[in-house]
Amino acid sequence: LPCFKKFMMENKNKVTVVLGAQWGDEGKGKVVDLLAVNSDIVCRCQGGNNAGHTVVVDGKEFDFHLLPSGIINTKCISVIGNGVVIHIPGLFEELKKNELKGMQGWQDRLIVSDRAHIVFDLHQQADGLQEAEKGKNSLGTTKKGIGPTYSSKATRNGVRIGDLLGDFSVFEEKFRTLAAGYKRMFPALEVDIESELARYREYADRIRPLVKDTVAYLHREIKLGKKVLVEGANAAMLDIDFGTYPYVTSSNCSIGGVCTGLGLPPNVIGDVIGVVKAYTTRVGDGPFPTELHDETGKLLQERGHEVGVTTRRVRRCGWLDLVVVKYTAMVDYITLPGWDCKIEDVRQMENLPEQARQYVKTIEDFLQIPVKYIGVGQGRESIIRAE
Amino acid sequence: LPCFKKFMMENKNKVTVVLGAQWGDEGKGKVVDLLAVNSDIVCRCQGGNNAGHTVVVDGKEFDFHLLPSGIINTKCISVIGNGVVIHIPGLFEELKKNELKGMQGWQDRLIVSDRAHIVFDLHQQADGLQEAEKGKNSLGTTKKGIGPTYSSKATRNGVRIGDLLGDFSVFEEKFRTLAAGYKRMFPALEVDIESELARYREYADRIRPLVKDTVAYLHREIKLGKKVLVEGANAAMLDIDFGTYPYVTSSNCSIGGVCTGLGLPPNVIGDVIGVVKAYTTRVGDGPFPTELHDETGKLLQERGHEVGVTTRRVRRCGWLDLVVVKYTAMVDYITLPGWDCKIEDVRQMENLPEQARQYVKTIEDFLQIPVKYIGVGQGRESIIRAE
Ligand SMILES: Nc1nc2c(ncn2[C@@H]2O[C@H](COP(=O)(O)OP(=O)(O)O)[C@@H](O)[C@H]2O)c(=O)[nH]1
Ligand SMILES: Nc1nc2c(ncn2[C@@H]2O[C@H](COP(=O)(O)OP(=O)(O)O)[C@@H](O)[C@H]2O)c(=O)[nH]1
Repeated sequence: LPCFKKFMMENKNKVTVVLGAQWGDEGKGKVVDLLAVNSDIVCRCQGGNNAGHTVVVDGKEFDFHLLPSGIINTKCISVIGNGVVIHIPGLFEELKKNELKGMQGWQDRLIVSDRAHIVFDLHQQADGLQEAEKGKNSLGTTKKGIGPTYSSKATRNGVRIGDLLGDFSVFEEKFRTLAAGYKRMFPALEVDIESELARYREYADRIRPLVKDTVAYLHREIKLGKKVLVEGANAAMLDIDFGTYPYVTSSNCSIGGVCTGLGLPPNVIGDVIGVVKAYTTRVGDGPFPTELHDETGKLLQERGHEVGVTTRRVRRCGWLDLVVVKYTAMVDYITLPGWDCKIEDVRQMENLPEQARQYVKTIEDFLQIPVKYIGVGQGRESIIRAE
Repeated sequence: LPCFKKFMMENKNKVTVVLGAQWGDEGKGKVVDLLAVNSDIVCRCQGGNNAGHTVVVDGKEFDFHLLPSGIINTKCISVIGNGVVIHIPGLFEELKKNELKGMQGWQDRLIVSDRAHIVFDLHQQADGLQEAEKGKNSLGTTKKGIGPTYSSKATRNGVRIGDLLGDFSVFEEKFRTLAAGYKRMFPALEVDIESELARYREYADRIRPLVKDTVAYLHREIKLGKKVLVEGANAAMLDIDFGTYPYVTSSNCSIGGVCTGLGLPPNVIGDVIGVVKAYTTRVGDGPFPTELHDETGKLLQERGHEVGVTTRRVRRCGWLDLVVVKYTAMVDYITLPGWDCKIEDVRQMENLPEQARQYVKTIEDFLQIPVKYIGVGQGRESIIRAE
């Protein structure tokens, strides 16, 4: 609720936001990892485990789907906000997988909103069945149940994390109603209701210690001067309102989703960093004006290791599309000179080939937005500061 | 898209927002009407014709549901943004009804987003059927099809205003798919697909002249220094994320919905005015801690003419609930002295009874938010400026 008020009129402490500016996989994970070092709290505000962020630390590759990538930073609190949809088994699997890679003490560093909606296995099944029905018109979803869950949320028969914490019979009733509705819509859907209920009775106990009212928590911490970083999932071109509908994800992954997904009012939003890949990739179906179906596309795919983190699908590749500001008008495509030396080891702006620097400058001029960081490889150290 | 960027870093021109701070019917319409006088553009950003705003001008009562209430101001452009859901027949009826009351020249003053989703009659039917199924657990919706439309939007088989403008066969295919899905979910649903298509072929021509890319339009006008006012529909306690879920509406009616529903970045949001009624009312079902089931409640209902603008339902009445910031903790209820003289004709703060001024001061102190205007009646003139 406090969101509609200028609740921090005199507060100078602002939240930093990292968003994808294309169709995802821009390398947000690395930028978040970089900025997390100076943050006290890292938050996810929308989407679910359809997202995939890769963070490479000391040669070890961590994949995050639902967890804020700040979770590997032992000095950070990680928050999964009310706008996120949570597949609880997936969350615990992800925690376990990363624990095996060396992540420790997450129990004290992870906070989950009581208002976040639950993704059930039946949502995932429905996602698959829906896609199958659409046939050639499929959306290319990750089949993680994200769309159906947001749909249940809008229908107002969604079940929230908070429903798991209290009287289990209330949860049970809600789950039965939801399952019955889905069975009717998709007769092929298989749900063993009793065993699901038994399973969630256990999950309730496992997730309980992590759950908090994240809205009140964040307001308090921001007031106390804590540095908060928000990690957008998916990307602006996949936004339910501003993306290439219907080939989009079912949440707002542009800046407004930070306000609705965490309960933060606009006046606490500070720097908004849009992450852009030097070329363009897209996973799944939908329009892609600069897509390359030729050898160059194949080269981008291979050299860039363009394979999806979540679904292992090969990413479609194409030229950089500067018409991200797509409805400001029809804009001519620009041809820019390339370079053919490796730049993976460059760390200083002045050591980049002239053409690469020109490439960055053209982007800055076109968008009228300063470029702050340039990624030249997967690792945490592979960043050139452009300032 | 431009929303994720600080696209107006040096722009000092800010947007003013009016939001409901309770469960709706706070009198937002009057405040918007007052502020519209100094605005160039008035926008709706979410909801549909489930909202109801009353504006009384020169004794004539205008009811607005989908139209921004600025529409009666001949110097204002009215914008229905991408986050709104539009029942086109309802829109044209509303225009006609207000035309009969004397509203003129709206054709040149109304702009509708191409990205707004369409509410079909089948959504309204589904809304009714869903409510009937829920029986005693019904949500008390207005049965205007708002929930089902937002649900279709999330499912990504929603149809948008823009789909009506181009090749009609594309619209037709989308409509058939949507209708088939709903028929399967609700076998009792009656849709005459051919006549619906014929009807929408006509609506396409009628709505075409009003449709624009409102995101680009607003960005341009704000840059040019135009004064923009946003009129929230519904209210914060009905927000899909922060309200009393599931007894909520299916959109974000807190401040984040202004960003997602109009494509405005946080840094152009200026004053946010929360409208509060001196007591509390609620239409439809759902929790209402301070509800009065006694004579006092009846008195509030009668003296306040508490009957819904949209559904004509009698509004539930109760004490002012200052726990709008509901999750900051359990807060004691406060008993405040009342007054028994009429205050309808008061126009100056100092002419209010001492108890009334004390009432306002207690609210200010509790919320730590200044009270700017006090409404003492329906009419445009019935406002006390508290500053
Ligand atoms: N070549 C190259 N690959 C990168 C760079 N930054 C990230 N990647 C890789 O790009 C892919 C997508 O990055 P990821 O962090 O998952 O994207 P996100 O979804 O935007 O967070 C992963 O395979 C990363 O390892 C970079 O600067 N150069
Ligand atoms: N008594 C009284 N009624 C008011 C006042 N302002 C508005 N109303 C009435 O309150 C009801 C709800 O107002 P409306 O503008 O429809 O609410 P909205 O949904 O917040 O825009 C209508 O019947 C108005 O005529 C006021 O200051 N005093």
